[in-house]
Amino acid sequence: MKIAKAGSSASSWAPAENFTGRVRRDPLVAPESPGRAVAGCVTFEPGARTAWHTHPAGQILIITAGKGWVQREGGPREEVTPGDSVWFDANEKHWHGATDKTAMTHIAVTEFIEGEAADWLEHVSDADYDYNG
Amino acid sequence: MKIAKAGSSASSWAPAENFTGRVRRDPLVAPESPGRAVAGCVTFEPGARTAWHTHPAGQILIITAGKGWVQREGGPREEVTPGDSVWFDANEKHWHGATDKTAMTHIAVTEFIEGEAADWLEHVSDADYDYNG
Repeated sequence: MKIAKAGSSASSWAPAENFTGRVRRDPLVAPESPGRAVAGCVTFEPGARTAWHTHPAGQILIITAGKGWVQREGGPREEVTPGDSVWFDANEKHWHGATDKTAMTHIAVTEFIEGEAADWLEHVSDADYDYNG
Repeated sequence: MKIAKAGSSASSWAPAENFTGRVRRDPLVAPESPGRAVAGCVTFEPGARTAWHTHPAGQILIITAGKGWVQREGGPREEVTPGDSVWFDANEKHWHGATDKTAMTHIAVTEFIEGEAADWLEHVSDADYDYNG
């Protein structure tokens, strides 16, 4: 058993290579083998979002603050608020982030398969981000 | 992609067979294969706790409200508060719950291995629960 106390690990900024805007990552306790699911807290400032990406074993998001947007390729942009949870299928191309006017925080639960938890693709363009079709 | 809106699934009560006291479970979105990590929200009223148990791939807890206690076999009872996260190793015998005077809520992330996520053992006796050695 190990306990990671709140605030015991430094926050970090998500890399511009895979994110748009200011995105803060606050780690949670790390699992050990054979556990392969990693949980972490991510905060998106207004307008910030991931790039398009996929996960080899899928992903769960649990919204904990604010209001955000999530979208899978080919589907509508959808709004999420605290208490909502989202499942992305394995290899489903998608993005998640804040709305244009509000921050959003979620816990992400992502499983590593053969050392990989995400495949990063192109950035979400402003046109795609703004489109509410 | 699927979204489980907050409050879209009924709460349920954890079974007396594996828990002591009143324990409420509020499910989050369910994963699909090959994802095997399930996340759920659990609220323990004061004095309530799991039985002793183990997990085949370990478990992450993320404390979201209140104040609780966690203990692994052979270790001290430890206090956890919101923002803390806890890792239990695979097959490590342990329990978690509220303190004697305060409720505690956590998100639990547990991986299924061959259809099993937990092995349940004996209840945590009042003597063990109260002992702060």
